[in-house]
Amino acid sequence: MIVNMSASATKEQISHVVERIQECGYQAHLIQGAERTVIGAVGSNGRRAEIEALRAAPGVQDVIQIAHPFKLVSRQLQQRRTIVDVGGVQIGAGNVTVMAGPCSVESGEQLMETALAVKAAGANLLRGGAYKPRTSPYDFQGLGVEALRLLREASEETGLPIVTEVMSETDVEIVAEYADMMQVGARNMQNFSLLRKLAILERPILLKRGPSATIKEWLLAAEYLLAGGNKNVVLCERGIKTFETATRNTLDLAAIALVKELSHLPVIADPSHGTGIRTLVSPMSKAAIAAGADGLMIEVHPCPERALSDGPQSLDLPGFAELMKELGTAPVREVKAA
Amino acid sequence: MIVNMSASATKEQISHVVERIQECGYQAHLIQGAERTVIGAVGSNGRRAEIEALRAAPGVQDVIQIAHPFKLVSRQLQQRRTIVDVGGVQIGAGNVTVMAGPCSVESGEQLMETALAVKAAGANLLRGGAYKPRTSPYDFQGLGVEALRLLREASEETGLPIVTEVMSETDVEIVAEYADMMQVGARNMQNFSLLRKLAILERPILLKRGPSATIKEWLLAAEYLLAGGNKNVVLCERGIKTFETATRNTLDLAAIALVKELSHLPVIADPSHGTGIRTLVSPMSKAAIAAGADGLMIEVHPCPERALSDGPQSLDLPGFAELMKELGTAPVREVKAA
Amino acid sequence: MIVNMSASATKEQISHVVERIQECGYQAHLIQGAERTVIGAVGSNGRRAEIEALRAAPGVQDVIQIAHPFKLVSRQLQQRRTIVDVGGVQIGAGNVTVMAGPCSVESGEQLMETALAVKAAGANLLRGGAYKPRTSPYDFQGLGVEALRLLREASEETGLPIVTEVMSETDVEIVAEYADMMQVGARNMQNFSLLRKLAILERPILLKRGPSATIKEWLLAAEYLLAGGNKNVVLCERGIKTFETATRNTLDLAAIALVKELSHLPVIADPSHGTGIRTLVSPMSKAAIAAGADGLMIEVHPCPERALSDGPQSLDLPGFAELMKELGTAPVREVKAA
Amino acid sequence: MIVNMSASATKEQISHVVERIQECGYQAHLIQGAERTVIGAVGSNGRRAEIEALRAAPGVQDVIQIAHPFKLVSRQLQQRRTIVDVGGVQIGAGNVTVMAGPCSVESGEQLMETALAVKAAGANLLRGGAYKPRTSPYDFQGLGVEALRLLREASEETGLPIVTEVMSETDVEIVAEYADMMQVGARNMQNFSLLRKLAILERPILLKRGPSATIKEWLLAAEYLLAGGNKNVVLCERGIKTFETATRNTLDLAAIALVKELSHLPVIADPSHGTGIRTLVSPMSKAAIAAGADGLMIEVHPCPERALSDGPQSLDLPGFAELMKELGTAPVREVKAA
Repeated sequence: MIVNMSASATKEQISHVVERIQECGYQAHLIQGAERTVIGAVGSNGRRAEIEALRAAPGVQDVIQIAHPFKLVSRQLQQRRTIVDVGGVQIGAGNVTVMAGPCSVESGEQLMETALAVKAAGANLLRGGAYKPRTSPYDFQGLGVEALRLLREASEETGLPIVTEVMSETDVEIVAEYADMMQVGARNMQNFSLLRKLAILERPILLKRGPSATIKEWLLAAEYLLAGGNKNVVLCERGIKTFETATRNTLDLAAIALVKELSHLPVIADPSHGTGIRTLVSPMSKAAIAAGADGLMIEVHPCPERALSDGPQSLDLPGFAELMKELGTAPVREVKAA
Repeated sequence: MIVNMSASATKEQISHVVERIQECGYQAHLIQGAERTVIGAVGSNGRRAEIEALRAAPGVQDVIQIAHPFKLVSRQLQQRRTIVDVGGVQIGAGNVTVMAGPCSVESGEQLMETALAVKAAGANLLRGGAYKPRTSPYDFQGLGVEALRLLREASEETGLPIVTEVMSETDVEIVAEYADMMQVGARNMQNFSLLRKLAILERPILLKRGPSATIKEWLLAAEYLLAGGNKNVVLCERGIKTFETATRNTLDLAAIALVKELSHLPVIADPSHGTGIRTLVSPMSKAAIAAGADGLMIEVHPCPERALSDGPQSLDLPGFAELMKELGTAPVREVKAA
Repeated sequence: MIVNMSASATKEQISHVVERIQECGYQAHLIQGAERTVIGAVGSNGRRAEIEALRAAPGVQDVIQIAHPFKLVSRQLQQRRTIVDVGGVQIGAGNVTVMAGPCSVESGEQLMETALAVKAAGANLLRGGAYKPRTSPYDFQGLGVEALRLLREASEETGLPIVTEVMSETDVEIVAEYADMMQVGARNMQNFSLLRKLAILERPILLKRGPSATIKEWLLAAEYLLAGGNKNVVLCERGIKTFETATRNTLDLAAIALVKELSHLPVIADPSHGTGIRTLVSPMSKAAIAAGADGLMIEVHPCPERALSDGPQSLDLPGFAELMKELGTAPVREVKAA
Repeated sequence: MIVNMSASATKEQISHVVERIQECGYQAHLIQGAERTVIGAVGSNGRRAEIEALRAAPGVQDVIQIAHPFKLVSRQLQQRRTIVDVGGVQIGAGNVTVMAGPCSVESGEQLMETALAVKAAGANLLRGGAYKPRTSPYDFQGLGVEALRLLREASEETGLPIVTEVMSETDVEIVAEYADMMQVGARNMQNFSLLRKLAILERPILLKRGPSATIKEWLLAAEYLLAGGNKNVVLCERGIKTFETATRNTLDLAAIALVKELSHLPVIADPSHGTGIRTLVSPMSKAAIAAGADGLMIEVHPCPERALSDGPQSLDLPGFAELMKELGTAPVREVKAA
């Protein structure tokens, strides 16, 4: 770490920082410039937080962290890319995995019709929300366990593994009974209690990026899962909040390319939430693949205008089939069914 | 609600939307302009979501919500301002309530020393983190139940009621045993499972605004609490994420003034997290009060440079006493101890 | 337009708004809901601003604009896509146009070496800054007219038309003497005086999106050019400012796809400024093309570590050749030299 | 500056950076940690940009600037606060300067009525737009020179000095003929050609913060003025663009407090643009003063609902008088007429 002393720092303040660095078992290297002094703190990482706290010491302008704060998710530690197996589907193995299905499970018919259609079109996993995090308490909150049962039926019928969101620590067990992959929603990315509970499962996790999470925060949320023992983590970029209101979120595809540099974990894109606009799902799906995404998560509904959630961004069944056909012939990278 | 048909919408598409509006039990009012047709949907609110879903219907450009989506938190429903009683301290009664204490409870000595000092300086509540939501799994995560016990002791010694964060649904009972007011942290503002669990308590809640939450989303999170039965809700503005990096967050004081117009709930400001910089805590405290805040939450530590979290934004004990003296003579609005 | 009266609006306030709408030559359509009244204002557009000003009238909560505020740039007015001819290169004709070259023209050698290399690699236009808008007055500000002359020489040698930024109204004539295409930089997107001056030329304009410009504001800036008489406008997405600091900007590729829906103007992407990181230029170039971009603008320097500006995001000559080879075989859309 | 080598940097890459630093006339200090090497570059500032360019060298992860990039605006250089004299009104002298008037000058009557009223209420300067930067080319663009003449008349009648925006380099002379203080609008904050032209005047400048400008960028824009020779600069915070849409902008009052720490220049707040909502102008005016602002700029119109621009955020005449009365008795800091 680098401690940047302010230009007006006194000798005593500099000495104090040096002593404190040494007290923490780090070495202090002074670099004296014309205007100011900068102190490098070199050492093992155990008391890093105490060095950082020196930002609060008199005469200190800033403490700059030099190393990335994440470890287990880092490619520095593990060059080999992680492949996550979800019920036989390999995510991150080079091909593009497509997860598709309705935002919310609304009924057995709706789900089964969608599941058969997305399977026929070439999807690899079935998505569908049982527990829905909704901005308003007056909006449809999901069918809960009933939806989990319907998802399992649809999975048995189609052979598609299931990914569904778990919103609450107290639902972890029940969701784990039914789901092949458990999704942590964007709003829960920093629900550390939930992450800790999921970390002790072996079940694969889909970790969505929070709408205001930096890439660093996102990777540190994944670090909670790996540090807790669960290595089966897939990241999902789903758009961040910006001043632009023409789209629901701003899909940050450079984050996908950058995460592929920084981490060995697979990363997929969710162009449905990422844009909020049905007609943008297709171009942004192609763009995400071109940027290096390992897969896509796409909302599909038999009748979007009657969807209980996220209709405007859902493809209808022919729309999804059309997209899959286009992706299949898009030769940037191969798309194949599991 | 207003359904804005696109300029190229066909007659059939318009008819379809009208029929669908009527099917939902709403009346449809057509306004035919030169370029496009706009359809007003008038009716009760029960199937509002279905009208909104029409955004997904062919020929529809947008569905615009006219009424505020929140109800119970709204001043439209309740003109009279809510006063929340926390262990005898009235929040929202016209005076300024000051909650102060360390970011994290680190030890009995650290807490007691701080508690006595903030009490002496005129604080009304003692804050202190027992469970800490930390971006990195390698950072200090709080002392947990031990910290709750220490908070209770400090409360008995000083007479200050306690506010502390509850991060997890499974900790709600234990935190409720010790805390006078339970804080929902910024990262958990949309942890709806946690909100639902807190809604069935009577214990006062301090609901922090999420770093990327709009004012509407924040009020809807509070709506979860009121709709679930808990009316003792105090809102806390603590800064939002923006492109500006010179401060940790951007403290949005206009949000305080606007929330006071829209809602009857008390609102306080957290200038410590809102700026991340100790020297800005004092001017922003004064500014928050001038903007209409019902109180302040301020981080105080006996030795900020040794704090296990948030040292750079913590005032030391004399610094807090100085601030309180300044606030006490700032005559915009009265500051008094409980 | 829709005037949304507040729930507490009085009859007199509603009547006043209706009268004012009629005074402006619009028809007023009342929609009376249970909670509030909404008034549609239907009419020609001449006094639209006066209707909008009613937002300031008593009892009015909001005035909602229904139609897009831009006209000439809109696909509603002109379905056929605009093709902009820059010295024989057709931008927007279906193929991908690549503009490449150094951020700043630093010397004759640097420019000529780069120009020959990017020409050989298949670029269609040569870019290079003569006048540089720099955040700090102490940074290199460009060689000015000398750079323009060097660009012209490089163009004559390579046959590549030139695109270069014009920063100042007073430089419009001199830049127009040398440049085939004149770039309006991101910081000048809403320099309306400059736009008005460029609008009366016929010279093609490359209009970069401002770092905090919404898509609507960007299209309205283009509208200034078209309304002033210049139809040869190409838009360029170059990233927007967000809270994410790992990349220099957040490249908003959905904006490209959306602008292609809303407007007939060609749109290109600048992945160099859009990311600020050399290794991200290649994936984001591919992603931009997949999203529908009509071209790319890419910074190339013979020795990026000695570049006087934007070295970290510049490709070196072999890096650019490699990218062009990859794009050439990327079969999403065809890339061909002019 | 600090050059942060990546963990995988080779010895050759480190040597290369060291040599390059020495070539630029700086000293290189190596700090070798367990994981990586960090190199301090110490020296005079002349070739700073070349050190920064090393970010593009192989093996370099980042180059971190340690010193603030601004000089003349910095309190490090000049502790004494600058007081700017505008026609006899001292800005930054400890009291609060209030600039008030219409967004746009629309007519002689409108302006004179407003000028007399704001004078009577205690304003110190008259504001009024002659040249209006408007997002749409179809909106009212200002009366130009005619407005300048009307402003001068109003100034003569009331004794209030005038502040008005100059949008274009070619208007600098004509605006300087009439205005006591020349405003650089938010969209032009980084119109460096305009800044350079204004820098050679002695006329006081009001430099608005750009809607997406960091504090650093804002101070560097001011640095252009000071470096060019004009020391009479007043900064104006007017809100930044964020994801929040309930207010027009997010007024960043912490920026005011922070700029007062970093710079000796006076800073005022514009709560009208900063919020876009009339009812928020009063609380945010008080908050800005409490945060340390040296003044306020407030939009006032005799009939806001008929204003040709910014009606919704304009106070009417009694509203402004009321605000001034409240500010006058707000004892945080003194408000006095010139």
